[in-house]
Amino acid sequence: MIETPSLVDQYCHGVLRTELGLGTFEARLARTEGPPAPGTTLFDTQTGFAVRRWCPPLLGLEPHCPPARYLARRRELGVREAGRRLLRGSGITTYLVDTGLSGDLTGPVEMAGAGDADAHEIVRLEPLAEQVADTSGTVESFLANLAESVHGAASHAVAFSSVAGSRHGLALAPEPPGPGEVRGAASRWLTDRRAGGELTDPVLLRHLLWSAVASGVPLQLHAGLGEPGRRVDRADPVLLTDFVRATAGLGTDLVLLHGYPYHRQAAHLAGVFPHVYADAGAVLLRTGAGAATVLAEILELAPFGKILFSSGAHGLPELHVVGARLFREALGRVLGTWVADGAWSLTDAQRVAGMIAAGNARRVYGLDRAAG
Amino acid sequence: MIETPSLVDQYCHGVLRTELGLGTFEARLARTEGPPAPGTTLFDTQTGFAVRRWCPPLLGLEPHCPPARYLARRRELGVREAGRRLLRGSGITTYLVDTGLSGDLTGPVEMAGAGDADAHEIVRLEPLAEQVADTSGTVESFLANLAESVHGAASHAVAFSSVAGSRHGLALAPEPPGPGEVRGAASRWLTDRRAGGELTDPVLLRHLLWSAVASGVPLQLHAGLGEPGRRVDRADPVLLTDFVRATAGLGTDLVLLHGYPYHRQAAHLAGVFPHVYADAGAVLLRTGAGAATVLAEILELAPFGKILFSSGAHGLPELHVVGARLFREALGRVLGTWVADGAWSLTDAQRVAGMIAAGNARRVYGLDRAAG
Amino acid sequence: MIETPSLVDQYCHGVLRTELGLGTFEARLARTEGPPAPGTTLFDTQTGFAVRRWCPPLLGLEPHCPPARYLARRRELGVREAGRRLLRGSGITTYLVDTGLSGDLTGPVEMAGAGDADAHEIVRLEPLAEQVADTSGTVESFLANLAESVHGAASHAVAFSSVAGSRHGLALAPEPPGPGEVRGAASRWLTDRRAGGELTDPVLLRHLLWSAVASGVPLQLHAGLGEPGRRVDRADPVLLTDFVRATAGLGTDLVLLHGYPYHRQAAHLAGVFPHVYADAGAVLLRTGAGAATVLAEILELAPFGKILFSSGAHGLPELHVVGARLFREALGRVLGTWVADGAWSLTDAQRVAGMIAAGNARRVYGLDRAAG
Repeated sequence: MIETPSLVDQYCHGVLRTELGLGTFEARLARTEGPPAPGTTLFDTQTGFAVRRWCPPLLGLEPHCPPARYLARRRELGVREAGRRLLRGSGITTYLVDTGLSGDLTGPVEMAGAGDADAHEIVRLEPLAEQVADTSGTVESFLANLAESVHGAASHAVAFSSVAGSRHGLALAPEPPGPGEVRGAASRWLTDRRAGGELTDPVLLRHLLWSAVASGVPLQLHAGLGEPGRRVDRADPVLLTDFVRATAGLGTDLVLLHGYPYHRQAAHLAGVFPHVYADAGAVLLRTGAGAATVLAEILELAPFGKILFSSGAHGLPELHVVGARLFREALGRVLGTWVADGAWSLTDAQRVAGMIAAGNARRVYGLDRAAG
Repeated sequence: MIETPSLVDQYCHGVLRTELGLGTFEARLARTEGPPAPGTTLFDTQTGFAVRRWCPPLLGLEPHCPPARYLARRRELGVREAGRRLLRGSGITTYLVDTGLSGDLTGPVEMAGAGDADAHEIVRLEPLAEQVADTSGTVESFLANLAESVHGAASHAVAFSSVAGSRHGLALAPEPPGPGEVRGAASRWLTDRRAGGELTDPVLLRHLLWSAVASGVPLQLHAGLGEPGRRVDRADPVLLTDFVRATAGLGTDLVLLHGYPYHRQAAHLAGVFPHVYADAGAVLLRTGAGAATVLAEILELAPFGKILFSSGAHGLPELHVVGARLFREALGRVLGTWVADGAWSLTDAQRVAGMIAAGNARRVYGLDRAAG
Repeated sequence: MIETPSLVDQYCHGVLRTELGLGTFEARLARTEGPPAPGTTLFDTQTGFAVRRWCPPLLGLEPHCPPARYLARRRELGVREAGRRLLRGSGITTYLVDTGLSGDLTGPVEMAGAGDADAHEIVRLEPLAEQVADTSGTVESFLANLAESVHGAASHAVAFSSVAGSRHGLALAPEPPGPGEVRGAASRWLTDRRAGGELTDPVLLRHLLWSAVASGVPLQLHAGLGEPGRRVDRADPVLLTDFVRATAGLGTDLVLLHGYPYHRQAAHLAGVFPHVYADAGAVLLRTGAGAATVLAEILELAPFGKILFSSGAHGLPELHVVGARLFREALGRVLGTWVADGAWSLTDAQRVAGMIAAGNARRVYGLDRAAG
């Protein structure tokens, strides 16, 4: 048996602090534009079935029990206690938490406490810029404050993340924009913008990416399905190839999140470029019983030292559980089959499992250093 | 064992009424541009092998018998009797028949009789427009007659289908064209056109799509490999994203046919948009022994209430048989494995199988209403 | 058991004549832009694991032994003797060798001798044109010498190969460029070029492709991951669709090499166009334990008479071994499973295995004629 005793979740969000009913819980199981179609429910998805498989036992119920029964038990325990039991049952020992989403979500400190785990912050670039814009009066002050904010974040965050792919698409000009270009774009954006307005300008998105690259802190880029975007093919990670080439040798690692359905392309980039890493977790949450297939596809081209687990969970601690359990089981099944076939040695399989589950993330994000 | 006692074939064509020789039968096994390469035969394809597996027993022969023997037996029985035995052995209890292809093909009534099944008509938009053009003298009469034809079709058809993807590509402007634009395009098309000329103008293709959307009848869109087209990537269903978004909330369902090799993208759209459904059948006919892999990939992201079986068969009743048998076996294998692994409960698997095989189609196409 | 007693490697390169240390050997296991990331090694890849599985036993060591031990044994035997043992253990009986790569690589005659096999030459078009440019003074002499070189190569080579996909991308205008266009492009290229300069001009790349098509000798086109290129999606084989259509019926076969991650698209083209063939080997070397999955995906749409084995090996005889063993094992597993499931008959499976392993290549490249 392939064991992964410790998991570093290299990308997730916090959990909701509020009690959820059946409908509000269901709405968190998928990312949709609109309510479920008449006659359908989001519980009838891979994610829904995976939640019903893995989570009821952690709250003292039988696997696959009906959603209403599960939700009743969850409310009986209360959101805090249920969350505590779920997170502690996930097998995750370190959470890297992207704090850039709105909503009443727990932060890294609460995640660490509830999950009896370590936790570190990931700073999302676009909301950072939007917050700076909300409080800056002029283009000059915006750009100066932004530089300071990125610099400040770099000193405490373990990574930056970017959703440029869903905001604009990944077909961005690969080189850093010039100072005049940035000033012009900032001026237009600040003029047109109302407080809270989203950053979608490609010049400013590139400016953010390059500011992050300059910091030396690993940069996580959403690709493929990661964030609901305008069109999924516009987030195909191959569109990043020239940006990747432009950032080679600068000392900053790039981590391609999600990737699916272009995860083979993400794995290819991780194989070609020394500073590129591929996520092999977040999508498993969505593909459920099909997780082993997707994981095996990532393992085709990506070097084993370049693959990182994440849950990609957001809002429900059930999703942290499911992301972690699906990953562990899929990894055990895929590597175990290869060992049984004689393709891999058991020693190698065990070593690679540890790398993907935790070791690679510890190295890339400097967690042994950060935790010290 | 996962059972699917009743199948609704949500997309197929009729069968040929003429006797076929070895060569004419072989030519129907694949969609090619030109005859088989020297030294090769289209029987040496997944479809050919699947026909040899499933069909001989229905005509009293052993599985995998040589093609010449099978064809001899088929001629011995006669095209009508062979067709009757094949269709009745398919397990399909309702056929939705696209009548928009030329050739000496049986219509819904004959399909129902031969197959001892229900049958309903799907009206293909582009041939409908071409027939109207053949009989309309002016732009005004063409547009008026077209509106009337679409309206009339909507009253008896269970769905419209469109091959805009293979005629032009799915990268169409998402919004409905304006009346002046439509008139201009119609005028140019009618002027240049000879009788029988194909509709490929993107403005008129969009006008047809929006006319269908306005009718409220489900609209089936060929995507991926469905129809031999100019370039398969131009039929990638992600190209429909903006059209899908523009039609959200209007009350008309969109069904993405085929999808392969972009079926994961089709499944993604079915997951994000309440009014989008994904086909999980027609491609199985082509992928044969690989059907379970493809079906499992569709089941990764598409909610289980959004997946519909079809055979995609055209011309040969053998293809209805093969489409249905491959689907049943693949579904049984995929879901059965998940149950055996503990990922799904048997009850859920059985329920989902019934939804994909028939229930979802009955709901989307209002078949219980239509049949009543 | 499915047997493939004889393998025709339809695409490979020679092996290095120099002794290799651990680092120089490792660097040959993958195609990267830069050295392995800190803390990682290219031995921790599917290719590295496959080499450690299959090659040590051929040199008298146990499978999966540590890289350093394997390299020590390799040096102990010497590069010639190690190469001899490896190539003779590969199961390959005919090598088609692309001689267009630089480096101290063995040619077809040495490959035949070392491997106790037949060997034939594949001529790569772009280096051929570059050599002609190096020795031609004027545009006129360049074009005349190029025509003569292509003609000469066609008389002894079994195939031409092209890397237009990685030099420019496969989105080339489909028709042959006119004579004036070619002259203009040649003039610009020769003027700007220093000796050894690479050919990347799209007009000249097309001119080469059409010169090869005119020769009647099969033309191999790198697609997908074949050669490290500018962006992998620019080598998606679907981009060749219009070129394929333009060359239909001219009597020259096109072979799509690699294809991955767009191998389903390559298989689709092989299914639609009589003169198109799909490679089902070179990528297996990269995907290792995942080889059976990729091979099964190619077998979904490509007719079985249109699929050809290759190792795609370059530089290390270990890669010829691994390419061949992975292919044999993957083919045996995929077809064996289908036989066990009753989907295919054993007779058919055995026949198809022989076609893909050797028979199709013998027919397409006229090897029985060439060897006579």
